[in-house]
Amino acid sequence: MAAKKTTNESAPLVGIVLGSASDVDQLEPARSTLKEFGVPFEFRVLSAHRTPDHALRYAEEAEARGIEVIIAAAGGAAHLPGVLAAKTVLPVIGVPVKSKSLNGLDSLLSIVQMPAGVPVATVAIDGATNASLLAISILSGKRPELRAKLKRYRKQLAEKVLGARV
Amino acid sequence: MAAKKTTNESAPLVGIVLGSASDVDQLEPARSTLKEFGVPFEFRVLSAHRTPDHALRYAEEAEARGIEVIIAAAGGAAHLPGVLAAKTVLPVIGVPVKSKSLNGLDSLLSIVQMPAGVPVATVAIDGATNASLLAISILSGKRPELRAKLKRYRKQLAEKVLGARV
Amino acid sequence: MAAKKTTNESAPLVGIVLGSASDVDQLEPARSTLKEFGVPFEFRVLSAHRTPDHALRYAEEAEARGIEVIIAAAGGAAHLPGVLAAKTVLPVIGVPVKSKSLNGLDSLLSIVQMPAGVPVATVAIDGATNASLLAISILSGKRPELRAKLKRYRKQLAEKVLGARV
Amino acid sequence: MAAKKTTNESAPLVGIVLGSASDVDQLEPARSTLKEFGVPFEFRVLSAHRTPDHALRYAEEAEARGIEVIIAAAGGAAHLPGVLAAKTVLPVIGVPVKSKSLNGLDSLLSIVQMPAGVPVATVAIDGATNASLLAISILSGKRPELRAKLKRYRKQLAEKVLGARV
Amino acid sequence: MAAKKTTNESAPLVGIVLGSASDVDQLEPARSTLKEFGVPFEFRVLSAHRTPDHALRYAEEAEARGIEVIIAAAGGAAHLPGVLAAKTVLPVIGVPVKSKSLNGLDSLLSIVQMPAGVPVATVAIDGATNASLLAISILSGKRPELRAKLKRYRKQLAEKVLGARV
Amino acid sequence: MAAKKTTNESAPLVGIVLGSASDVDQLEPARSTLKEFGVPFEFRVLSAHRTPDHALRYAEEAEARGIEVIIAAAGGAAHLPGVLAAKTVLPVIGVPVKSKSLNGLDSLLSIVQMPAGVPVATVAIDGATNASLLAISILSGKRPELRAKLKRYRKQLAEKVLGARV
Amino acid sequence: MAAKKTTNESAPLVGIVLGSASDVDQLEPARSTLKEFGVPFEFRVLSAHRTPDHALRYAEEAEARGIEVIIAAAGGAAHLPGVLAAKTVLPVIGVPVKSKSLNGLDSLLSIVQMPAGVPVATVAIDGATNASLLAISILSGKRPELRAKLKRYRKQLAEKVLGARV
Amino acid sequence: MAAKKTTNESAPLVGIVLGSASDVDQLEPARSTLKEFGVPFEFRVLSAHRTPDHALRYAEEAEARGIEVIIAAAGGAAHLPGVLAAKTVLPVIGVPVKSKSLNGLDSLLSIVQMPAGVPVATVAIDGATNASLLAISILSGKRPELRAKLKRYRKQLAEKVLGARV
Repeated sequence: MAAKKTTNESAPLVGIVLGSASDVDQLEPARSTLKEFGVPFEFRVLSAHRTPDHALRYAEEAEARGIEVIIAAAGGAAHLPGVLAAKTVLPVIGVPVKSKSLNGLDSLLSIVQMPAGVPVATVAIDGATNASLLAISILSGKRPELRAKLKRYRKQLAEKVLGARV
Repeated sequence: MAAKKTTNESAPLVGIVLGSASDVDQLEPARSTLKEFGVPFEFRVLSAHRTPDHALRYAEEAEARGIEVIIAAAGGAAHLPGVLAAKTVLPVIGVPVKSKSLNGLDSLLSIVQMPAGVPVATVAIDGATNASLLAISILSGKRPELRAKLKRYRKQLAEKVLGARV
Repeated sequence: MAAKKTTNESAPLVGIVLGSASDVDQLEPARSTLKEFGVPFEFRVLSAHRTPDHALRYAEEAEARGIEVIIAAAGGAAHLPGVLAAKTVLPVIGVPVKSKSLNGLDSLLSIVQMPAGVPVATVAIDGATNASLLAISILSGKRPELRAKLKRYRKQLAEKVLGARV
Repeated sequence: MAAKKTTNESAPLVGIVLGSASDVDQLEPARSTLKEFGVPFEFRVLSAHRTPDHALRYAEEAEARGIEVIIAAAGGAAHLPGVLAAKTVLPVIGVPVKSKSLNGLDSLLSIVQMPAGVPVATVAIDGATNASLLAISILSGKRPELRAKLKRYRKQLAEKVLGARV
Repeated sequence: MAAKKTTNESAPLVGIVLGSASDVDQLEPARSTLKEFGVPFEFRVLSAHRTPDHALRYAEEAEARGIEVIIAAAGGAAHLPGVLAAKTVLPVIGVPVKSKSLNGLDSLLSIVQMPAGVPVATVAIDGATNASLLAISILSGKRPELRAKLKRYRKQLAEKVLGARV
Repeated sequence: MAAKKTTNESAPLVGIVLGSASDVDQLEPARSTLKEFGVPFEFRVLSAHRTPDHALRYAEEAEARGIEVIIAAAGGAAHLPGVLAAKTVLPVIGVPVKSKSLNGLDSLLSIVQMPAGVPVATVAIDGATNASLLAISILSGKRPELRAKLKRYRKQLAEKVLGARV
Repeated sequence: MAAKKTTNESAPLVGIVLGSASDVDQLEPARSTLKEFGVPFEFRVLSAHRTPDHALRYAEEAEARGIEVIIAAAGGAAHLPGVLAAKTVLPVIGVPVKSKSLNGLDSLLSIVQMPAGVPVATVAIDGATNASLLAISILSGKRPELRAKLKRYRKQLAEKVLGARV
Repeated sequence: MAAKKTTNESAPLVGIVLGSASDVDQLEPARSTLKEFGVPFEFRVLSAHRTPDHALRYAEEAEARGIEVIIAAAGGAAHLPGVLAAKTVLPVIGVPVKSKSLNGLDSLLSIVQMPAGVPVATVAIDGATNASLLAISILSGKRPELRAKLKRYRKQLAEKVLGARV
């Protein structure tokens, strides 16, 4: 794989794949959340349209490399999550990125309306935090410590809401 | 739980929850796919609006009962998947049911646009088959035999496409 | 209730509930209108997804606490008004908050498209003023002085329009 | 009033107004629900565009005639609820009727997006049942027996859901 | 009429009516175009919801006062053009004003989707220039000098396009 | 003009132009309404895309031929009304025809969103009746008998509404 | 290539690729138009999601096999045209197929909103005829006889319109 | 042709036509891409509505003048691409320009939803780069050196993606 790698990649369990380097800010919350939970991950820029072979190979090899969940983000005619899902039976989570003209409605429909046979688990437009939480929830199926952390995280969320001064 | 139970429930791993009994036909493909894969599941009708306490309790108790993934289907102002997700850290898969007036656009947006903190893994409108395949993919994280079945399933899908006479 | 309270709460008749503290500015007009009409109210931040139990309990106890109308505001997959309405037979008014990507269309559809049995009285996107006026209109059913005030308010609205210089 | 009257009108508390006689079937559930709850109502066909004077006069005189809540249904450029609300401070509930070409999206937006000052309590597209339940909820502010009936109604709803065989 | 009047009103042929004083800037091009063509007009702020009686009376009296075309602009649940059209058989031109949350889609549908019997001649969102040109075109039916001016105007438009340097 | 002509064409005042012969049923109400009002008209099938020269020539020659108003109906990428309006300063009324896939939303936007300089008076999707009434309203500027007929027509509309039994 | 082939394939110039055998009827007009023009073509069912490798290989080998234009049709999250375009620099024409719930709006946006670098020439929803005409227009760049046929075709279109009896 | 010409016009192969001079910035990427590929082109401002005759004549004469592909950009009720396509059998590529109120959804539908018989090859909203790449792809049918350049361009695109640091 020629794509550049980033930190926290010893034995990555989650592969975050971006369709375009310009979407990196939208995905930042996924990165920070996975770090907060101590989940090793890797970060890739791979395009369904500009680097189709690399994208497919990434999906094809992910399972063997120890990846358990893929998060894929793309905008506009957002094919990346579906194209990755076509080459792996790992859970693929799709993040529709808000687009310039249609505000992400195009991204959302391009990702969520997958045909029967190849699912993509779609989260909200620019929903990177939830993509990572969903990945952690999936990983927690065989990692009780992650499940416990998720419960603490939810508790903190609740406390923050209840403690809000308005 | 007072809600009626259906077949295949010895040690259910997947809980399929419908917001309305009238959506049962749309969910049929989830049922048949889970059966085909030999995944035990249960089927419930529980409404976020008409039986909120039962719905929340279902989500709250699911993990302890051995459920590993929840599939929730609803239409219109489709709150069920989000409300269940609020009470469990298990992965919750949302199926937007096609609605009478807005064709499921309302269902889709009500399910997918969840706020940060509580994800719902959304599939296509009336995407029950993919909901069950996603559930199986998640379950397969610690069940290699399911992963193998998923790969065979994909192979059959491909063969069906390639064998089509047009 | 652990949620923080604000002013004007001796014998609150209206409960204003926000799904997120970040929506407080959008709700300000409701607050100021209720004050202008001298209607006691309380202000809560309670999330259908992050604090589901508190939200449900709030709705369940509202009637006994003397609340007569609930105003609930939320954005995106806006479940709060519907979830509160599920636990009370008091009138619940829903305010769709303008969302970042879809401009509140998601909020509106998530709130207004409720299934038969559990109504939410929906006002315009970011329509906090009208939510409070609708609450006052409902309260005025047994409070003639409020009805009189509403009529004066309408008169002033008209005078302002007719006096506009353009 | 020259408009034709229908049954159950001794001391009507709710005025159901239709923009077009062709929408009568969509409003049937409102009629039957009000009957079920024993709430006297009247039924009118009055158009904001074809009979504007009658429509405005109806709204203007409603309060003095003892009407406490108005339900107004219209489709397309659905101005009736807003036009009635302009002439009364009674609560006005708007029912967007599903339209032929745009499926009621036009009706919904025409009704719900009211400017500050004149609220319309909007329910779902073709949401006649909920319009009547909301009217009953409003009336129940000073009629404890209606509130009790609403609670029984909700209980029955829940039982129906929980008893569903799927 | 209590509403404030503006310049150029000796024998106004066109009545420009705004639903809100805040829309005055969007209508400025109509004003300047009518002045350029030497068509006398008047400018009113009259709301279908806040001053319904004045609005209806305006439409009712317009013909007798010598008005030949009405231009009405409104945003959101934009009822003004339709409500005026309900009280006059003069041509009524509707200008959907771009709204804050839905960008004028609500305004457009509220104005254009009129039921059979009462037409509103709708122009583009924020299409004030075209509203005035359409009014002039209608007036020119019996004023050959206006028709000639329209033709010169079109010629100038063409020359401007053809002379553009890009 | 090679295009086929139909009845009622002695001195036609209104030209009804269809983009496609398949839209003829949607335009029938315009035909019958004009007949009812005794307004002579002609009926043409002329396509902006398949017969652009004929379409433009029609618009160019209409005024000299005594036509005073043009009604143009088209669906999908509905360019006909705008293309005709580009070649005449007569009032052009656009009728968006309901389209197969997008229900006329494409037709509506293609017709109503005209750039500044060349207006099209747009009516509702499939709004042929209103197109003809708007044409009659425009013609009535110098024909008092048509104005009187329009007022009678409105009266009958009102009586029909008020006489409805529901 | 394992995919089934159909008639008219001696030296195919156009490759028609369907995402699903169920879309074959929508593509029939492309087939018949190409036959009418005497353009050799081939017909394939290849899915971006179910047979990604075959789809990519098809695009990759198309140029060498003599294919000059590819027509790809798909519905829902319609990735096929974009995925093929990613693997060839031949012109790829995308046909959005009308989908069950969202009427093809999802298909259209998934196909047309391609990122910079990899274009797809998109035609109307279910626009198979135009897809084939566009392919012929492209082929005619070096085939004068096709260009001549296209002109005759246009002439016949015009004659059909002008000869319509309405 | 009176329209102003710009650089790089010796033997132009591509005609870029803008509906409005104000859209020139959106089209800049088409200009620079064609220059980069060494494809001679011309740049025109011609409006379907303000200069219909010039627009049609441009399309009619394009083929004889050596133009092989036309790129047409327009916003709102974007008729220019379709109107040009009506007068030539050359491939016409449509670029929907993002519009002020509806963000280009109106432009897109006005361009892409062409009726059978006259295709427009539509690219993404503000997709000028892809319009020029599609033109080059079409031209490359008989210019192997362009095809080779396109392949190099794709390679560079891929390298840029793979070299991104995130």
